[in-house]
Amino acid sequence: MNSAVPLKTRERILATSLQLFNGQGERQVTTNHLAAAMGMSPGNLYYHFKNKDAIIHALFTRYAERMAATLTFPDDHPLTQADKANLFERVLTVLWEFRFLHRDMTHLLETAELSAPYRAFSLRVLEQLRELYRAQIAAGMIEADAETIDTLAITIWITATNWVNFLHTTGLFLDEPRASGDITEDMLRRGILHVICLEAPYLRGEAKAGLAALKAHYAKSTS
Amino acid sequence: MNSAVPLKTRERILATSLQLFNGQGERQVTTNHLAAAMGMSPGNLYYHFKNKDAIIHALFTRYAERMAATLTFPDDHPLTQADKANLFERVLTVLWEFRFLHRDMTHLLETAELSAPYRAFSLRVLEQLRELYRAQIAAGMIEADAETIDTLAITIWITATNWVNFLHTTGLFLDEPRASGDITEDMLRRGILHVICLEAPYLRGEAKAGLAALKAHYAKSTS
Repeated sequence: MNSAVPLKTRERILATSLQLFNGQGERQVTTNHLAAAMGMSPGNLYYHFKNKDAIIHALFTRYAERMAATLTFPDDHPLTQADKANLFERVLTVLWEFRFLHRDMTHLLETAELSAPYRAFSLRVLEQLRELYRAQIAAGMIEADAETIDTLAITIWITATNWVNFLHTTGLFLDEPRASGDITEDMLRRGILHVICLEAPYLRGEAKAGLAALKAHYAKSTS
Repeated sequence: MNSAVPLKTRERILATSLQLFNGQGERQVTTNHLAAAMGMSPGNLYYHFKNKDAIIHALFTRYAERMAATLTFPDDHPLTQADKANLFERVLTVLWEFRFLHRDMTHLLETAELSAPYRAFSLRVLEQLRELYRAQIAAGMIEADAETIDTLAITIWITATNWVNFLHTTGLFLDEPRASGDITEDMLRRGILHVICLEAPYLRGEAKAGLAALKAHYAKSTS
């Protein structure tokens, strides 16, 4: 970040962009729309970001940082099932906050030069997922060997990154037909329920005992 | 299919298209390329298919039929572990034969009006996957309730349809850096190994006993 640029305007642009990208879909929103929504001249917007891709890039970087910070367990007490439910909630919040990224990641990777940062982000998340499983194994909440942890981490990554697209292409679990850009909190919650079911056979102890309650929580619709 | 059209030319166009789409990527191949490769005038090609999308559509229909015919177990003898290994091989063959479809399915869905047939195909495959699990449960090879079968079928579908893209975006399991269109038999084999690992905790009897051998088979590279 350029320290000569007033933080406030830059932040306002990112916040407005995120809101409009999420609400209308990134492809529908131009830098002119963004400038108009902020009561700002396009020239002023370009002073802060040279183009829309630069804004997407900055939002992706923020998303990756938020997700990396989220995919951790607290280390001030022994791991509990509540920590895991809490992790799911935080992941859901981050996914929801940056939901425009998941509408058409393939398109963004192609157009916004996100290949290299996305690859680094993917590998980092995969390692964090393995670390989360190792912590659950150490706490007696999961039983799995290294190969199984790899399989789970990869499966959860592929599922999480393609869940919205899966719902749209199949029409499954949708309360009503949705335009391909639509994404709701219920769609994300159903994805978390899917991950919970995936992990079920590996659960032990407290985690196994709490499985039914956790599933029931995410099976409930918010709408 | 129009019965007035000689089958041979139509078939030749489809075979050549499949070969060039697989080899060079669908986006790189125009109808002019196709006509030239067949020593045919573009007009003659258009007589059989009004445009490239019509060819893609016909190839997708064929792929969907082949996959539907593949996702079954023989019903003339009790199900064995060999039937399951055989199923994997046949799935791999079909995926490989129509590999251009998996390079950028999102793009094809948008451009070639494949949304409706793709949705029908997805739901059909999901039901076939559930049916395959029910057969394995009946044969004592798998232990799983209806919810688990749903979870497995969906997970395998999402994994299978996004596996190639996952390898390209992360760079994992690639013997060398690959262009985003590249797809090799080893990449598909690694995907089958992933599915085998996913199913591991649900296996019983003969299937559980044969797990190590099946994994070893798909862990071997063909190159």
